[in-house]
Amino acid sequence: MPVKSPVIVDLKFIPEEVDAALVSAFPGREVINLADPVHEGRDLKGIDYAVVWKSAPDLFSRAPDLKVVFSGGAGVDHVLTLPGLPEVPLVRFVDRSLTTRMSEWVVMQCLLHLRQHRAYEARAKAHIWEDLIQPEAADITVGVMGLGVLGQDAITKLSMMGFKTVGWSRSKKHIEGTGTFDADGLDVFLSKTDFLVGLLPLTDETRGIFNAGLFAKLSRKGPFGAPVFINGGRGGSQVETDILSSLESGTLGAASLDVFEQEPLSKNSPFWDMDNVYVTPHVAASSDVKALFSHVEQQIERFESGQPLQHLVDRKAGY
Amino acid sequence: MPVKSPVIVDLKFIPEEVDAALVSAFPGREVINLADPVHEGRDLKGIDYAVVWKSAPDLFSRAPDLKVVFSGGAGVDHVLTLPGLPEVPLVRFVDRSLTTRMSEWVVMQCLLHLRQHRAYEARAKAHIWEDLIQPEAADITVGVMGLGVLGQDAITKLSMMGFKTVGWSRSKKHIEGTGTFDADGLDVFLSKTDFLVGLLPLTDETRGIFNAGLFAKLSRKGPFGAPVFINGGRGGSQVETDILSSLESGTLGAASLDVFEQEPLSKNSPFWDMDNVYVTPHVAASSDVKALFSHVEQQIERFESGQPLQHLVDRKAGY
Repeated sequence: MPVKSPVIVDLKFIPEEVDAALVSAFPGREVINLADPVHEGRDLKGIDYAVVWKSAPDLFSRAPDLKVVFSGGAGVDHVLTLPGLPEVPLVRFVDRSLTTRMSEWVVMQCLLHLRQHRAYEARAKAHIWEDLIQPEAADITVGVMGLGVLGQDAITKLSMMGFKTVGWSRSKKHIEGTGTFDADGLDVFLSKTDFLVGLLPLTDETRGIFNAGLFAKLSRKGPFGAPVFINGGRGGSQVETDILSSLESGTLGAASLDVFEQEPLSKNSPFWDMDNVYVTPHVAASSDVKALFSHVEQQIERFESGQPLQHLVDRKAGY
Repeated sequence: MPVKSPVIVDLKFIPEEVDAALVSAFPGREVINLADPVHEGRDLKGIDYAVVWKSAPDLFSRAPDLKVVFSGGAGVDHVLTLPGLPEVPLVRFVDRSLTTRMSEWVVMQCLLHLRQHRAYEARAKAHIWEDLIQPEAADITVGVMGLGVLGQDAITKLSMMGFKTVGWSRSKKHIEGTGTFDADGLDVFLSKTDFLVGLLPLTDETRGIFNAGLFAKLSRKGPFGAPVFINGGRGGSQVETDILSSLESGTLGAASLDVFEQEPLSKNSPFWDMDNVYVTPHVAASSDVKALFSHVEQQIERFESGQPLQHLVDRKAGY
């Protein structure tokens, strides 16, 4: 039996989580975890596989013989822009856990805004027992932009929680019980949307799509008047100066941001302190590292036994 | 046509909401809203119906001829203990909106604890970008005590969000896909439960049921170690000195409390300021006042046309 090719692991995750998941991962195969200083300067020639998330810029020059590159997350923009990315299959991470985690975050953010959580927290801080007029989920239409696996799961769960839903994607998708719109229908979609949820991949077409012009087209007929922007997709698709000015002018009533144009978010960002903004540090759908490695193992097994790889990225579309 | 009996309304809700809902309620029938000072001292003899929530203690002596009493909420303990409650049918408020609102609150609280919301809020306040090791919903078993309409809806939605669920009720109920337990199975139920959700009616059997002895039997095997207590039912079923000491000793890791032994919660209560406690002012399932009146109209119509009333309270069981 020929020796199995090692796997390069270059993941900017919590190191302890990666280490813990590696204990039982890739049986019978060497793992070269670049977070371990022992591998500094190691020759990576002749190695077939790399699992990457925000990998080192020199990775592909150091490992020129890769046959498959695996993204450590659902998004692949961080891989597609790496210098020297070889023309080999690029596999995204699709996993039950990643999807359900994103929906946990999206549903929680929608509920936080619906249930006026910050207002109640402020009252609790002041020891004030006072109820507020409370719309129910059915009074709010949540519009989801991006109808891939994540967007569809979010819509199912938001609907089940009682929210009205609409969906938008570049090319028209059909979702039972939810009005869907394509590129041409964007304005109609926005006019129906009280809470806007972004779950778009970052491509040339989506870069900066969440801007002042778009926010101004959102519905103002919801029970809270001003719309809410919730982004769990990619920071590059939002224009943060526009989010700020829209929040200040009242064009937006509130926001939940898990992603930012620059990550980590600057210590000086005004978002941290805003009463009507929830900030999380790109953790909406943190990859479950064990699930990631088991997915990569599975795909390597398919590859080595001559079966087609799954969840391949379309580089031209950018996702 | 005989003149229709007026309806007495005695609801300690937000007055503006009651007024707004009354505009279009009870067509062809006089409404005596006791919140309106014009009705002070008014003779209420001969009136058939009253809709009450924390009503005046002298209501039933002032209105001795009531034929049906309608509770303004799902719970009826506040009506059953009123002095002079006549031996007439007592109708609880069951409504899609009331149920879905309670599930909004329960699911949101479970997600807040799962997603370590307070820890992320503390980091945001300090402008710290740092992710935490994040269990997913499937790593947590939520145990729901009380399997009426509210408990069953909560279990359906928690399951759909990915949580494992178990249920407990005095008499055994069957719920597809969820392990259920009755009185004899309480200890087993508790040993499986990481997040405990209380949706029990207040009866002689449930008074003080959520106490230190019960908390000590909850699972400590969940990813957060210590269990979480979430009460959306009735304050009388919890022992607050025990909740406090259990939180202090680590027997409980955190809590979400919408109900309290004394409401409004005292300004001096330590719960207001605790980092691991979410306090809301009995708003988990605020009655939608319009829905309440339309439900009462419907039941009055049934009553006056000789059909049986629905959602009748079993006074002996206490709910």
